[in-house]
Amino acid sequence: MPPVAPRSGDAIFTSVERVNAELFTLTYGAIVRQLLTDLEEVDEVNKQLDQMGYNIGIRLIDEFLAKSNVSRCVDFKETAEVIAKVGFKMFLGVTATVTNWDADGTTCSLVLEDNPLVDFVELPDTCQGLYYCNILSGVIRGALEMVSMKTEVTWIRDMLRGDDAFEMQVKLLKQVPEEYPYKDDE
Amino acid sequence: MPPVAPRSGDAIFTSVERVNAELFTLTYGAIVRQLLTDLEEVDEVNKQLDQMGYNIGIRLIDEFLAKSNVSRCVDFKETAEVIAKVGFKMFLGVTATVTNWDADGTTCSLVLEDNPLVDFVELPDTCQGLYYCNILSGVIRGALEMVSMKTEVTWIRDMLRGDDAFEMQVKLLKQVPEEYPYKDDE
Repeated sequence: MPPVAPRSGDAIFTSVERVNAELFTLTYGAIVRQLLTDLEEVDEVNKQLDQMGYNIGIRLIDEFLAKSNVSRCVDFKETAEVIAKVGFKMFLGVTATVTNWDADGTTCSLVLEDNPLVDFVELPDTCQGLYYCNILSGVIRGALEMVSMKTEVTWIRDMLRGDDAFEMQVKLLKQVPEEYPYKDDE
Repeated sequence: MPPVAPRSGDAIFTSVERVNAELFTLTYGAIVRQLLTDLEEVDEVNKQLDQMGYNIGIRLIDEFLAKSNVSRCVDFKETAEVIAKVGFKMFLGVTATVTNWDADGTTCSLVLEDNPLVDFVELPDTCQGLYYCNILSGVIRGALEMVSMKTEVTWIRDMLRGDDAFEMQVKLLKQVPEEYPYKDDE
């Protein structure tokens, strides 16, 4: 039997169960507001959003692999393209652009022009240090760790800070030997 | 010109922007876990989820009215049906059943057999008092308050507690005079 072809992000997005984007956006906004109230320090909120994203990412990767028919990527370049074109589309309904590769092929940027997380969001002056979308970078870090790639994900551009797009830099730190991807305590 | 007919929940759900339901479910799970860690007391978490839902509901009602073409409901009975058939469908992709009306027509139940919020969720023994879906009751309370109905919403059945469905009791406390539905500080 020939191998099953990977499915496009569009095809998957159409076929999976979905909820209203505005509900998601407002729910996410409610989390951020809650964390700002509970934790007070913006840096702590950034850390917490990243950790929440990580916890989501290590589970979402299962759904991604199950629904997308994507098999092992040959290298980090292919991985980045798959995240941008299939992963983002499948979960958020938008696609990202991969750009700004370094010479080694171990660092690149994912650029989002459209980001459902920030619809209707404006940051007050008191939140200037906040990385509002830090959950996204956490999700990517968590998901990649489950397929043996340790990465560091940092925000380079942020429309809520006045930039013209969202840009995350993804840096491959090391490729760890493949292990059984589930942790007993998760 | 004839009045625009209200749109069905299905039609609206197909036309609005959506995100992957699993991402929403896991994100919501991450909120609840976060609140349990930060607040420790289950009662406090219930209160906080309800408040977050309320804050979401008072904004979501705008999207609902804008997209659904639903105009003023003639009475609370019609309101309950609209929430169950149009509101739930539009935001969560599922419908609820309205049942258990009292003689006055001021109290009823909304019953959900399918609830995307709780996919993959199991509560540990330490969370037995938790109303995991309390955000939903808060959303309904908040949304109804914006259309001049003060309600009390309580959980009667909860599948995470071993019941055979989710059942919320919605009690109309009073119908307040119509006011401009936006608050300056929101």
